[in-house]
Amino acid sequence: MSEPRTIALDAMGGDHGPNVVVGGAALSLERQPELSFIFFGDEANVRTELEHVPALSARSRIVHTDTVVGMDDKPGQALRRGKGTSLWLALEAVKNGEAHVAVSAGNTGALMAMSKLILRPMAGIERPAIAAIWPTIKAECIVLDVGANIEATARQLGDFALMGAAMARALFHVECPTVGLLNIGVEDMKGADEVRQAHAWLKNTDLPLDYIGFIEGDKIGQGVVDVVVVEGFAGNIALKTAEGTARQISEYLRQAMQRTWISQIGAMLAAGGFRILKEKVDPRRSNGGTFLGLNGIVVKSHGGTDAFGFASAVDLAYEMAQRGLIGRLAADLEAFHHKLDASAAGPGPVSMSSQAR
Amino acid sequence: MSEPRTIALDAMGGDHGPNVVVGGAALSLERQPELSFIFFGDEANVRTELEHVPALSARSRIVHTDTVVGMDDKPGQALRRGKGTSLWLALEAVKNGEAHVAVSAGNTGALMAMSKLILRPMAGIERPAIAAIWPTIKAECIVLDVGANIEATARQLGDFALMGAAMARALFHVECPTVGLLNIGVEDMKGADEVRQAHAWLKNTDLPLDYIGFIEGDKIGQGVVDVVVVEGFAGNIALKTAEGTARQISEYLRQAMQRTWISQIGAMLAAGGFRILKEKVDPRRSNGGTFLGLNGIVVKSHGGTDAFGFASAVDLAYEMAQRGLIGRLAADLEAFHHKLDASAAGPGPVSMSSQAR
Repeated sequence: MSEPRTIALDAMGGDHGPNVVVGGAALSLERQPELSFIFFGDEANVRTELEHVPALSARSRIVHTDTVVGMDDKPGQALRRGKGTSLWLALEAVKNGEAHVAVSAGNTGALMAMSKLILRPMAGIERPAIAAIWPTIKAECIVLDVGANIEATARQLGDFALMGAAMARALFHVECPTVGLLNIGVEDMKGADEVRQAHAWLKNTDLPLDYIGFIEGDKIGQGVVDVVVVEGFAGNIALKTAEGTARQISEYLRQAMQRTWISQIGAMLAAGGFRILKEKVDPRRSNGGTFLGLNGIVVKSHGGTDAFGFASAVDLAYEMAQRGLIGRLAADLEAFHHKLDASAAGPGPVSMSSQAR
Repeated sequence: MSEPRTIALDAMGGDHGPNVVVGGAALSLERQPELSFIFFGDEANVRTELEHVPALSARSRIVHTDTVVGMDDKPGQALRRGKGTSLWLALEAVKNGEAHVAVSAGNTGALMAMSKLILRPMAGIERPAIAAIWPTIKAECIVLDVGANIEATARQLGDFALMGAAMARALFHVECPTVGLLNIGVEDMKGADEVRQAHAWLKNTDLPLDYIGFIEGDKIGQGVVDVVVVEGFAGNIALKTAEGTARQISEYLRQAMQRTWISQIGAMLAAGGFRILKEKVDPRRSNGGTFLGLNGIVVKSHGGTDAFGFASAVDLAYEMAQRGLIGRLAADLEAFHHKLDASAAGPGPVSMSSQAR
């Protein structure tokens, strides 16, 4: 079942560089022994790190480069000066088929701009999206877009639904994933035009997903759907707000447990439970934003994460490389666009007007 | 310092009607003995409830009506059939000066539509907003708009900043509240055009607030500012997502504490601490969305809340009625609009172009 998979790693991206990237790859390799890696970055630095982990070293090669995209470079700058950087080379390895997927902790804007340039958007895709793994009380769900774009047309929201469903199929092993459209209410008349139009399409078009309708923000963490679709501004704000709320409640809990000596003793006895809670809400466990809608898979790790967090992004990359996510998605998208075009040409209540926006 | 204040209560709004409204008013009166109330609703029902609380009964009068806006009525329907409903009469009492503020647990869309019709937006205000009280690790902040509108122009975001600052001045007793603009990054170039334009105005215009720039969603709960400004779609999603995340973590905590008998004993000993945590994250404590930008203050209670939650909305209404929020805000808004118009007429980097959107 598990095939050998090669992951292209941008060894220079992120706040910590090769140290975290090599450490993360080593942790992930322990879990997925069939993995192999290509590190793109400063050869001497990477080699020094690899010397500590012979098992990883045996399954890795290094492609040297000493040019790097800065964490603060604007996407335009990064593109102009990008050729030959560790980021660029990692993406080219995916394009050339040397690697199945690329992982970088580099600057998101630059990574997206270069990914679009090198891997190119899939046929009919106007905008790739970034998908996040969101922990729920049941398991996990996928939320997209969490910040690749600002605003989305109805057609783009429809594309996101199909992209998210393809990812859910790969990760959660469900053939027909449930999908909800994030909105400010659940009635048909609620929300922006684009959201209502996407709702009408998703409801009335035969697609390889189980569309359950609008959902509100408080339902994401309840795990009511496999995939939550939203435009990137609100999606990014929702994701960050959830992270902030988790931190806030952990802080309340810490304070509450210290108020009396009885609570302090109770908290000591319950330490095992608190450890489990801490693991559950650890953002490093769900680290990794997946770029969807390109001819190749790219996973963006948080720039400030450590080896444990980076390993989560590598695990995620591996899971997706294992399945034929892209081939199936391309077919689904083509069928969807074909149906949209057909419904726009013919009569009927579903109009394409909001696409012109 | 505390003056007698009269609150107009829509006794029929919400899922539970007079029972919760009277119970909430009674709780709030215990805390603010100078309050008096006008209940709009079915006289017999309200009187039956008031008989249980003589102290409240002595400070209340009832205005009978047996027509009610349904919780599912569309705003248009509610307006057409609204005259004489409990909601309508409560708002008219504010307009006529019989009451200082109105509180309703009724349908948000109908309440906003009627509030606009009866109280009218303040001069120069294109769109009123709904402001929420958001608990933070330091104290509380104000977030607006949480769903009165979808999208906002740069000028409307500027208005929201001034409205939020006026509310912060009334509630938090700070003369120059700190204000942040919610965005998907903190660099000047990030975000939608409207958000960047509002940022430029807030940064460069002399206003009675301390503008600290962009903030991301994870900073809301950290209490870094008194006021968070965002358009209503993303604001509503952020608010609901935070509520959902709080519930999710409470559920994790409950499960984690039950895993072993040692954790169970620990949790029992720490029960006092858990009670404090529960109070901290109790959504009833921050119940109440304030409509800002109208010639009168209206507080929307959650429709499903109980007497404890409704009392929080009444407390909030009282706090705002205590201060001259509206007079001061009107002057601030006029000054802001005057400066915008002047900067649009003259040369300079601040353009009014995004207003045309």
